[in-house]
Amino acid sequence: MLESLKNDVCLANLELKTSKLIIYSWGNVSGIDRNEGIVAIKPSGVSYDTLTPDDIVLLDLEGNVVEGKLRPSSDTPTHLELYRSFQTLGGICHTHSLNATVWAQACRPIPCLGTTHADYYYGEIPVTASMTNDQIETEYELNTGKIIVETFKNLDPDQMPAVLVANHGPFTWGPTPAKAVESAVVLEQVAEMAMKVAALNPDLKNTSQKLLDKHYLRKHGKNAYYGQN
Amino acid sequence: MLESLKNDVCLANLELKTSKLIIYSWGNVSGIDRNEGIVAIKPSGVSYDTLTPDDIVLLDLEGNVVEGKLRPSSDTPTHLELYRSFQTLGGICHTHSLNATVWAQACRPIPCLGTTHADYYYGEIPVTASMTNDQIETEYELNTGKIIVETFKNLDPDQMPAVLVANHGPFTWGPTPAKAVESAVVLEQVAEMAMKVAALNPDLKNTSQKLLDKHYLRKHGKNAYYGQN
Amino acid sequence: MLESLKNDVCLANLELKTSKLIIYSWGNVSGIDRNEGIVAIKPSGVSYDTLTPDDIVLLDLEGNVVEGKLRPSSDTPTHLELYRSFQTLGGICHTHSLNATVWAQACRPIPCLGTTHADYYYGEIPVTASMTNDQIETEYELNTGKIIVETFKNLDPDQMPAVLVANHGPFTWGPTPAKAVESAVVLEQVAEMAMKVAALNPDLKNTSQKLLDKHYLRKHGKNAYYGQN
Amino acid sequence: MLESLKNDVCLANLELKTSKLIIYSWGNVSGIDRNEGIVAIKPSGVSYDTLTPDDIVLLDLEGNVVEGKLRPSSDTPTHLELYRSFQTLGGICHTHSLNATVWAQACRPIPCLGTTHADYYYGEIPVTASMTNDQIETEYELNTGKIIVETFKNLDPDQMPAVLVANHGPFTWGPTPAKAVESAVVLEQVAEMAMKVAALNPDLKNTSQKLLDKHYLRKHGKNAYYGQN
Repeated sequence: MLESLKNDVCLANLELKTSKLIIYSWGNVSGIDRNEGIVAIKPSGVSYDTLTPDDIVLLDLEGNVVEGKLRPSSDTPTHLELYRSFQTLGGICHTHSLNATVWAQACRPIPCLGTTHADYYYGEIPVTASMTNDQIETEYELNTGKIIVETFKNLDPDQMPAVLVANHGPFTWGPTPAKAVESAVVLEQVAEMAMKVAALNPDLKNTSQKLLDKHYLRKHGKNAYYGQN
Repeated sequence: MLESLKNDVCLANLELKTSKLIIYSWGNVSGIDRNEGIVAIKPSGVSYDTLTPDDIVLLDLEGNVVEGKLRPSSDTPTHLELYRSFQTLGGICHTHSLNATVWAQACRPIPCLGTTHADYYYGEIPVTASMTNDQIETEYELNTGKIIVETFKNLDPDQMPAVLVANHGPFTWGPTPAKAVESAVVLEQVAEMAMKVAALNPDLKNTSQKLLDKHYLRKHGKNAYYGQN
Repeated sequence: MLESLKNDVCLANLELKTSKLIIYSWGNVSGIDRNEGIVAIKPSGVSYDTLTPDDIVLLDLEGNVVEGKLRPSSDTPTHLELYRSFQTLGGICHTHSLNATVWAQACRPIPCLGTTHADYYYGEIPVTASMTNDQIETEYELNTGKIIVETFKNLDPDQMPAVLVANHGPFTWGPTPAKAVESAVVLEQVAEMAMKVAALNPDLKNTSQKLLDKHYLRKHGKNAYYGQN
Repeated sequence: MLESLKNDVCLANLELKTSKLIIYSWGNVSGIDRNEGIVAIKPSGVSYDTLTPDDIVLLDLEGNVVEGKLRPSSDTPTHLELYRSFQTLGGICHTHSLNATVWAQACRPIPCLGTTHADYYYGEIPVTASMTNDQIETEYELNTGKIIVETFKNLDPDQMPAVLVANHGPFTWGPTPAKAVESAVVLEQVAEMAMKVAALNPDLKNTSQKLLDKHYLRKHGKNAYYGQN
C-alpha cells in the first residue's frame, strides 16, 4: 500500500547520503499521507546502501505498525508527535549534520545573518531547552517531539521549517519528504556560514526585519516573484 | 538570436555547480552583447541539472524581454544596472558562495593579505553599505545595483572585479561570463584564506602597496609577463 | 593461513583511504584471531593502491612474524600491547585523521557535547599523558601501548573504543577490524564537531549523565533498542 | 632531450591538480638533471587540463631556454636560485595551497606540534622575512629565491623540505619532482592541523626534541626503520 509515499520516503532518505549530511545509518526521513493518516519512515539502523522502498515502515499516527517487516526508526515517536501537532507537515527529516549539530550542541539558536538564511527561514532557527532528567528517563523520543512543539508555541512551522534540539541535532520539515531534506541541506549551509561570521564578528546581530521580509516573502507566500510560478 | 552568447551564459552558469559555488538553483550568471545592447541571463529558479541554452532569457538594457519563454532571474535589475554603469563588463556572476558570503554577512571588506589576492584584485574587496529600509522596500534589486555602483565611485571595476553586498553575498564580473565565474571561484578562495589568517593574526594588515603592484601588474596591463601572451 | 582474517584486515585498511582518514601510506589496521593467538597487520610503508591480503603480515602476540614477506607496521608493538591488555579487542586502527589528531596535539580530551558522541562513546575521549624522554628513547612503540593501557586503568575499553595519544593521534578499536575503522570515522566527526562547539562556546560542558546514558545505552548493551536486533 | 625528466615534471604538475592543491593554472613544479645541469619546468599560465611533457620548458641554471616553444613559469628564477644554492634538490614545487598560504600570509612559522609534522620536517617550518620594496622592485622572483636561501642559513634543506614565503605561499622540494609534490601535500595537512590546534590551545609549544628526533629519525637517515628498505 501507499507505494508512491514509500518510494518518495526512500528517495528522500537516500538523498541524505548523496548530500553528505549523514554517514553509516545515521539520520532518517519520513513522509505522511494525510488522507490515510499513515506515516512512512526509514527502518532503524539499516544501511543506505541497500535501502529500498520495500524496507520503509508504515505506521498510523499512534505508532502502530500497519506494514513492514522491519522495526521503524528509533526516532519515530518524535516524528509522530510533530505530525500530530503541526498539521501542514508532509515530511520530516532528522540528521546529525556537522554544522547544524554544532549549534545544537552549543545550545544556541542560529541568528539570521543574511539573505541566504532569509530566503528559507523567517527568523532565527530556534533551539529547544535542554531536556530534563525526567523527560529523558521515560518516553525520551516522544518528549523530544513535545519539547520541539513547546519551542514553537509562538512560531509558525510553515515559516520556520527547522529546529535544533539542544545537545542533539536538527529536525527539519516541509510539505514533502524531499522538501524536508532540502531544508536540512540549506540549514547545514546556513549553520556553517553563521559559525564563520561569528568568528569574524562575535557581536552577531540579526539582519533588519525589512531585509528578512523582503527575501523571505519574495520566495514565499502570495506575493512571491522568485521562480517560474 | 545570439546563440553564441546564450551558449556561453549557459556554460558559465553550469560552471557554478561544477565549481561547488552553489546548490539547488541558487546563483546566476549573465553576459552581454555590447553591439546589440542585449543581455542574456539565467531564468529564475530553474535547476542546473536541466538548464540548456534555450532556457536563457534575452533582455534589452531597460529590462524588456526580447526572447525567452521563462521569467529571468529575480536579480536581473542588479545585473542591468551594473552593465549600464560599468561599460567594460562582458559578464556578471552572483552566488552565495560560503566564505565570500560570510564576509558579506560580517559587513567587512576582504583585506589584501597576500599574493593570491593581489594576482586578481587590485586592493581590498569592497563591501557595500547596508541597504536602508527605503532601498529595500521598492525596487530592491535595482537598488542593489545602485549601491554597488555607489561603492565603486573611487574604484575601477576592471581592476576590482568583485564586490560584497552587505548582509547578502558577492557579485563578480569580467570581460566574459566565464571570467565572471572565474572571479567568483577565486574570490571564494581568497575569502577563505583571509578568514583563516584573521584567526591566526586578528590584527590584519594589507600587504605592502609594492607587493600588490608587483603581483597585480605582472598579470594585468601592458607590462604583464605572466602566461603566454 | 587465516585467509579470512587477512582479507578482513586488508579491506579495513583500504577503508581508511576510502573514508579519507589517511593519505599516502599513513595509518594501519590490525585484527586478531583469539583462538590462534595470531595478529594480522598492514606492512610498513606500503601504498594502499597496491595492498592485497597477501601483503598482510601475521605475528604472534610476542611479535614473532609467523607469515609474510614484508616488514610489519612500525606501530606493531603498540597494537600487540593493546591486544594483550584488552582481551575483548578484535581489531585496532591507527590514523592521523585531521580533527582527532588536532585534539591529540592539543593534549586535550574530547568532551561529550552531544548525542552524536554519546551514541558511540560512553564519556569523554581520553588523552594519554605526554611520553617522557625515557619512554620515547627505548621501545617507543611498546611504550605507546603501555601509556594507553595506563590511561584506561579506570575505563572499560569496550565502552570507550578510542584514545588520543598526546602529541600524536588516535587509536581506535572494536570487536572486528571493520568496527575499529568505524570508530575512527566516527571519532573524526565527533572531534570536528567538538572543535567547532569550542569556538562558539569556549566554556565546554559535558552533556548530562542522563542523556549520555540514554543515547549510549539505547545502542549498546542488553537494553539496546536501536537497529534490527 | 631528457624525455624522462620532462615526463616526471609533467606528472608531478598534474598531481598538483589531483591533490587539490591548486585551481586553474596556479602553481608549478620543476625538476633537474644534475649531470646535464638542465632544469625542466611548467610553462607559464598553461592549463593543467591540456599539459603534456612536450610543453615542459628546459633551461640551464642561468635561465637560458634550451628547449621548448612556451615561456617558462614566471617563478622560474626562484627555482633556479634554489637549485644553485641547495645542491641536493632534485625537484621543487610552488603552490598557493590554502592552509600553508594562510600561515605564509600570517607571516608565522608552523610550529612542530606533533608526530605528523615530525615524520616529515625536522623542526618548525620557517617563514621568510617580508620582502623590502627594493627586493620587490627589481628581479622580484630571483630575490624570492635569495630570501629563501637567507632563511636557511642555519637550516639543512634536506631535513626541512619546505618554506613559507611571507605574504605569499609555500615552496617545497625533495630528491625528485614527485617528492617535492608529496612535501606540498603533507605541508598542507600539517598547516591545517596546526591552525586548528592554535584555535584550541593558543599557547602553542613545539613538541619535545626527543619526540621530534624519534619520529623524524625513524623515517629518515641511517637508523630509519619505517617502510620496507
